[in-house]
Parts: sequence; C-alpha cells; structure tokens
Amino acid sequence: MIEEGERLLLVGEKREYYVKAGAGELGTDLGTLDLSTLVGASPGDVIRTHKDVAFTILRPRPTDFFTHARRSGAPMLPKDIGMVIAYTGMNRRDEVLDAGTGSGIAAIYFGNIARKVVTCEVRPEFAALARKNVESAGLENVEVRACDVLEAGGQYDVVHLDMGLSAAHVEHAYTLLKPGGYLASYTPFLEHTFIVLDAAQSLFRDVHAYECMERELVRSGRGTRPSTRVGHSGYITVARK
Amino acid sequence: MIEEGERLLLVGEKREYYVKAGAGELGTDLGTLDLSTLVGASPGDVIRTHKDVAFTILRPRPTDFFTHARRSGAPMLPKDIGMVIAYTGMNRRDEVLDAGTGSGIAAIYFGNIARKVVTCEVRPEFAALARKNVESAGLENVEVRACDVLEAGGQYDVVHLDMGLSAAHVEHAYTLLKPGGYLASYTPFLEHTFIVLDAAQSLFRDVHAYECMERELVRSGRGTRPSTRVGHSGYITVARK
Amino acid sequence: MIEEGERLLLVGEKREYYVKAGAGELGTDLGTLDLSTLVGASPGDVIRTHKDVAFTILRPRPTDFFTHARRSGAPMLPKDIGMVIAYTGMNRRDEVLDAGTGSGIAAIYFGNIARKVVTCEVRPEFAALARKNVESAGLENVEVRACDVLEAGGQYDVVHLDMGLSAAHVEHAYTLLKPGGYLASYTPFLEHTFIVLDAAQSLFRDVHAYECMERELVRSGRGTRPSTRVGHSGYITVARK
Amino acid sequence: MIEEGERLLLVGEKREYYVKAGAGELGTDLGTLDLSTLVGASPGDVIRTHKDVAFTILRPRPTDFFTHARRSGAPMLPKDIGMVIAYTGMNRRDEVLDAGTGSGIAAIYFGNIARKVVTCEVRPEFAALARKNVESAGLENVEVRACDVLEAGGQYDVVHLDMGLSAAHVEHAYTLLKPGGYLASYTPFLEHTFIVLDAAQSLFRDVHAYECMERELVRSGRGTRPSTRVGHSGYITVARK
Repeated sequence: MIEEGERLLLVGEKREYYVKAGAGELGTDLGTLDLSTLVGASPGDVIRTHKDVAFTILRPRPTDFFTHARRSGAPMLPKDIGMVIAYTGMNRRDEVLDAGTGSGIAAIYFGNIARKVVTCEVRPEFAALARKNVESAGLENVEVRACDVLEAGGQYDVVHLDMGLSAAHVEHAYTLLKPGGYLASYTPFLEHTFIVLDAAQSLFRDVHAYECMERELVRSGRGTRPSTRVGHSGYITVARK
Repeated sequence: MIEEGERLLLVGEKREYYVKAGAGELGTDLGTLDLSTLVGASPGDVIRTHKDVAFTILRPRPTDFFTHARRSGAPMLPKDIGMVIAYTGMNRRDEVLDAGTGSGIAAIYFGNIARKVVTCEVRPEFAALARKNVESAGLENVEVRACDVLEAGGQYDVVHLDMGLSAAHVEHAYTLLKPGGYLASYTPFLEHTFIVLDAAQSLFRDVHAYECMERELVRSGRGTRPSTRVGHSGYITVARK
Repeated sequence: MIEEGERLLLVGEKREYYVKAGAGELGTDLGTLDLSTLVGASPGDVIRTHKDVAFTILRPRPTDFFTHARRSGAPMLPKDIGMVIAYTGMNRRDEVLDAGTGSGIAAIYFGNIARKVVTCEVRPEFAALARKNVESAGLENVEVRACDVLEAGGQYDVVHLDMGLSAAHVEHAYTLLKPGGYLASYTPFLEHTFIVLDAAQSLFRDVHAYECMERELVRSGRGTRPSTRVGHSGYITVARK
Repeated sequence: MIEEGERLLLVGEKREYYVKAGAGELGTDLGTLDLSTLVGASPGDVIRTHKDVAFTILRPRPTDFFTHARRSGAPMLPKDIGMVIAYTGMNRRDEVLDAGTGSGIAAIYFGNIARKVVTCEVRPEFAALARKNVESAGLENVEVRACDVLEAGGQYDVVHLDMGLSAAHVEHAYTLLKPGGYLASYTPFLEHTFIVLDAAQSLFRDVHAYECMERELVRSGRGTRPSTRVGHSGYITVARK
C-alpha cells in the first residue's frame, strides 16, 4: 500500500512522470492526474487522467534516477558504476566516501546499497543540485557535503573518486580507508589513470585499472548486430588497503 | 573488536588464508597460527606464526569470495555481476531470485546487497557446495534451494538467470516479478541471447542485451598497454516488468 | 614531372581539390586556379590562386578516393578493406572478383593492388557511378559490370562479396575460385554471417569470421583517450578453396 | 603448369608442407613424396606419398608465409598489416621502406603488393633469417638490409616502422617520404605511441593512431560466440607528408 509522500513513477505508453503521492495535481498534455488517488493504491495499479489516459504506478528503482535526476554534467554510466560496486564488493554494511558528486547519480546508486554514504562536491551549486536529487530519491543515508575531499576525515570501507585527481588524492584516500577497504577511481583520460596507478602502487595491494567497453546487441527485423552508443567513458582503478 | 566465530582473512606477503576466529590452530608452511588470539583483535592488527611470519587480519569483503569460495565451474565474473547490479538497480530493500546457482558466487554478491536472496540450483551436489560457500560467507539472508526455477513461486524485485534458458524461463520470470521489477539473464552464446530477447520483447518493457568487454590497463617498466584476460564471457539481457 | 591529363590532389590549408592537369580553370572561393600550369610541375610544388592562396600539388593515393569518390551509400571502411587484403593475401599477381560494387571504393583499393579486378553491381545506376569513380581513379584494370554475380564466370584468386548473401552465393563463389584462392565476405548482421559460415564450412578450408573493432587514440591538451567513431561495421568471413 | 624451382604448398588432411618443385624427395610420417612429379602438374592436382596418402598442390599466397616462415620473434598480425596497407593506400606503384624487419613477415606482405620494398634490420642474424624467408617467398623486389634505418636514404611512398621508436625516427621518416607519402608505425605500448603522435603532429598532416581489436566469431554445436585470441597487439599510427 502506497503511503502519503512516497515518490512514485507513473509509466504511460509514451511518457513517464516521477511524482509524490498526496494532495495535488499533475498537468500533462494527455490530461490531468489527481495525485491524492495514489495514496492507498498498490504498485502495478493503473491511474487515469481526466482524459482517460492510463498510467501504471510503480515504485522507483535506482535505475530511474539515471533517467529522472536533474543533471549538472555527464553522469557515470551504469556499466562503470557496476564495475565499482563489483570490484569493491560494496554491500549493506559499508560506509562509503564518494567525491566528485556531480549530480549525485553514483552517490544515489551507492546509497541504495551501502549503510551510509558521504559525498563531497567542491562546487556549491552542484552540491545543492545533488542534495535535491538525493532528497527526491528518498535516501536519508546519503550526506552531500560542499567541501574538498582532501579536508574529509573519518574511516570508510570504500572511497570512490570521480574528479580531477593528483597523487595527493590517492594518498589521502589511503588514510580514509579501514584495513581491507577499497579505493576506486574513475578517470576518463590515460594520463590521470597513470597518476592513480603510480601513486597507488606503492601504498595499496591489488592495484588494477580496468576499462569496460559496453556494446548493446541490437535486434531488429533486418537482423542482429552490436551497437556502440558510448565508445569510451573512463578507466576504473581499484586498489585495496 | 573481532568476536568468536567471525570469519577473517589473514593476508601475508605471499599467501592469504580464510579462517574462523576461536579455538584452533592453522598449520602453514610458514609456521603455525593460533586462531584463538584473533578474538579481541582488530582488523588491521598483525598476527604472527610460531616462526614469526606476519599476517594482517582483515574482515573479508564479497570480493574475497570470488577468490576463496570452492568452485563447481566457471563463476560469473565481477564485470558481469556489476552489470546485473547496476542495470537492475539492486538495493538493500530487494528480494532477489537467482537461478543457476553454480558455486554461489553471484548469490553471495547479491546477498551482500539485497535483503533476501533465494537461489535455485537443479544439481543437488552443486546446491550443497553453494550452501557451504554461503554459510562460510556468513550470509543468513541467502537461501539455496535444490530445485528447478520453473517450480519457484513468490514475488521478487529482481530475477537473475544464469543457466540454460528457454522462452518458458523468461515467461515464468515475468510471473515471479513485482511490477517494475527486473529480469537479468546471463547467456554465453548468441543463440540463447536471441531466445531471451525474443521472448522478453513481447512481455517486458525496456529490453536490452549488453556485452561488457573488459580490458585491464597493464603498466610495467617496459610501458603501459591494454591486456585482455577474458575475451568474452556472456551477454547480459535486462528487461523490466 | 606531371603530364597532361594526370589526376592530382591540390591541398590547401582548409580545402582539398581533386583535379585533372591541363587546359582549364578551377574556381574556388579562395580564387581561381589555372590548371594548365600543373603540367610540367612536380608533386610537392605549390600552385597559387589569382588571390595568391597556396595549394600543394600531390599525386593522389587510394586513400584519397575514400574521401573524394562520389558515394551511392556507406562504403566499406579502410579497417575492413585492410582485413580483406591481409587475410586473402591480395597481391600484384591476383585476379579479383568483387560483387556489391556500391560506389566502387573497395574495387578501387583492390584495383590498386591486384592485376585485374572485375566488380559486379546489379543496380545499373550504382554501376554507372562506380564506373565514373574508377575512371577518375585512373584505373584501367578495374572492370565494372552491371550484372548479378551469380551469372559471373571465370577463375579468380580472390572473390569478395559485399551484398545480401545466401548459401547460393557462397557455393557459386567456390566455383569461381582457383585452387588455394580465397572467398572474403562482408556482412553487417550476425544472421548473414551465420549463413556464410555454415555454407562455407562444408565446401572450404580454413573458414573464419572476424570483427575488427577500431578505436582511435585521441590526444589533446586535456589528455589522451580512446574514441570510437564507428562502433560496428560488419563481419569479415574468410574461407579458402 | 608448374615449373621447376617453383615454391609450392602441399596440403593434406592434417599436414601442410612448403616445398620446391624439382629433383628430390620429401620424407613425411605419412610416406615419401617425389618432388620431381610436381613439375608440369597444375595447382589443385593431387600428389600421393608412396603410402598413397593424398596432398593437394597449391601455389602459396602471402598468407602462407605467416604460417610457414621461420620466425625470430612475434610477427605483426594480419589485422595490423591490413591496417597499414589500407590506411597508407599501399599499391602496385609504391616504393616502401620498412624498418624493424624481424622475420620479414610484414616485408613479404608489402613486397607482394608494392613495386619495391627496402627493409632495414639492425640485428644481422635477424636480417639473415628474413633474407631466407624473402628468398623462399620468391620475391625479387624485397631487399633486406642489415642497417639502422636512421642511416637509410632515398625517397619512398610509404615508410613503415615496427621497432623501438624515438622522435628522431619520425623526423627521419619525414625526410624519406615523397610529397603525399605516408608514415605508418606499429607500437605495442602507449608511451611509444605518444612519442610518435607528438613528433608527427608538428611535421605531418592527418596524424591518427588506431587500434584494431579483432575478435573471431566462433560457431560450434553448442552455439556461436566471440573469441579473442589476441587481446592487444599494438597501435598503428598513420601520418601523411
């Protein structure tokens, strides 16, 4: 049963809306939706506009924030977020430090898995946008800080860096990690990947840089063939304390 | 503080051991370790064999099971497990049905993230081995069933299939999913990927098949170059109810 | 020394023109070029427009036809043409049958290497365009035929097919090849690649299908990273008689 | 009709031999072959050992030298040789300078296409081996020089470098090229590729570095899937004078 204030996804044939259950209306070009009728409904139920156009009610999943979050730049792609999660073994018990929040997409993915996420963003306007996205994702365990990660303290299971990086960031990440914890960095350029690899090599164990080249297999009436939407995004470097 | 019965990783210069804290000894070729001294120690502390060889004490992370679990065949690779997690948005609140358990590596990754995992394996001896691996990972929320997934009931947020697949499996997965839930299948061969895509297309929304080609960037004294350890593992097909 | 009637490339800072040495003028937005002054000049010399804008005179190479030929559709890419040449060992002594001429780019590459190329194109208007491109490339050893390859006879060292393919085409290619000769086909879709592989398997030796995923390494002030302009073009299947 | 002294390939069900037509015998574990009977035969004919085991007679193609040449190290792969040929537009009229001969595989491919190939190899024993391979390939237009390429003079249409490279090599290559000619280098490591790109950028036009990731599509009774035999070989950098 859906409660007042729950964030929901309304999925129609051609459009999707991300709304809050409770008093209020949503005007669409397919008619008006009465959002108070969502309270008490169940996921999978259908709600109709005053023009009788149907929308299915769904509880949003982290994947929906990739589509619906407000963006301040190009976010990390699911393939790369998946690499970070799998290679660090991110889990329910973890405390995660994320830096280079951007619009907060990665922090929201991590916050849906880990116990606690602190994410640092130096640009205050980006931090403010990310805070709105986190709030709209209903995550109370993700804290957005408008700060430089080099000033951050504490002890974490995973430190994730998606930002301009120097050796100092790698060294500081080491001090922020619990024994056995993982650093994972995301760097679009080879030169920055080299900096991370070289700085990590002398401090960490099991240092590896990976690239995930994703291809979709597209199947149509003409036939099936691979398709590359994104040729290169970045390198994921993983190192263990 | 480490408690009696906790599973721990002892990391030496050249060897790693996966042990349980408490009464008992571990004989190694570098000397004997007294496991009772682990109780009360802290992660990051050092324990020494009677020959004074040092091992660092760590709490294991899901990544360690990729290395230390007993295997019944080739497990899914972290890159592919990461794709499943990211594209389904797997999270702390999820109930996950996994089928084709194998040695249970994927189920252990999922069990470290999701609230509850049920994993089905038709071969009883594989199911028994997976059960030992799950127990050794200390996961009480992962249930290994020696059964055919086509007999499974219930409602799940994510259904993950890593096994010989027919259209019937895709159709049954649909009935097992909550509204908005995701099917993710792993298929090494193109023909099976086509079967999943075609069966999913008429039932599900947002049907996509992906391949993640992973390359490591290897940096040595001679220079830096990409290295492909695994050329192709399988296709991940994702579909949403 | 450049002779009357030679085809030449005039390369300026921002523009390139493909011209014929001899009487006549070329009007450009940077001024008029007197093409008769090209006769007697040498490659590498500079010619100037009446506005004193400089163009370097070069003898064109096969790569220039990839840029300057008139196109009737998407031509095969250099990476794929290179695979065909290398895997068939195409050489100076060869007689090549090409089918699915299109605008003739592949036939022009082959004609610059082999002794004789016959290329078949069923669509008469495409054959006419290809004939113009071949003539403009100055190749007298490339014959463009407006015909169905299934009607072609003769004996060739290499048969190259870039067109809609059935098992009948593979079987006919076998009859057109000298002992030890190679069939090479180009097929964008997996299904057509399967047809070629299956038909070739029972007739030919050394049957292999390859894909060449090309990435450019792009180096700028910001750093160096791979870039994928074309994600997938097609599969090259090679089989030896 | 096969003439005395011609190099031939004898292809059996399980073995291949590379022989010279004329007086002499070849002893194999399947019986003895009388090589004088090859004179006057035709490609495609069958020759039998004294134990009545059949071998088909074929004229060798450049691809056969990839298999049958004596090797002094890992040769360039066909995919990379194809990239060099296609991106330089190598053709019948070309004079090619090749450096870093190794066992001569690339020089043999080029010699089968171009009018003249000079190939430089600093290690005299490698040069001697390459000379034997070239002779055995029957190529009179390929000259193997035991020298440092920095000492080479002349004017070429294509300069190909497959060796340890410095900026000096790129600059010297520029002086060796005719106007409009191409430099193509092969470098396994990123660092060397950067050196070539940076040195070429200020001298040449159209500077590009490419990587060709080749995958074979393997089709068996179990299904079809990609297979990567060689994950990374090297980068091909192409630049035009």
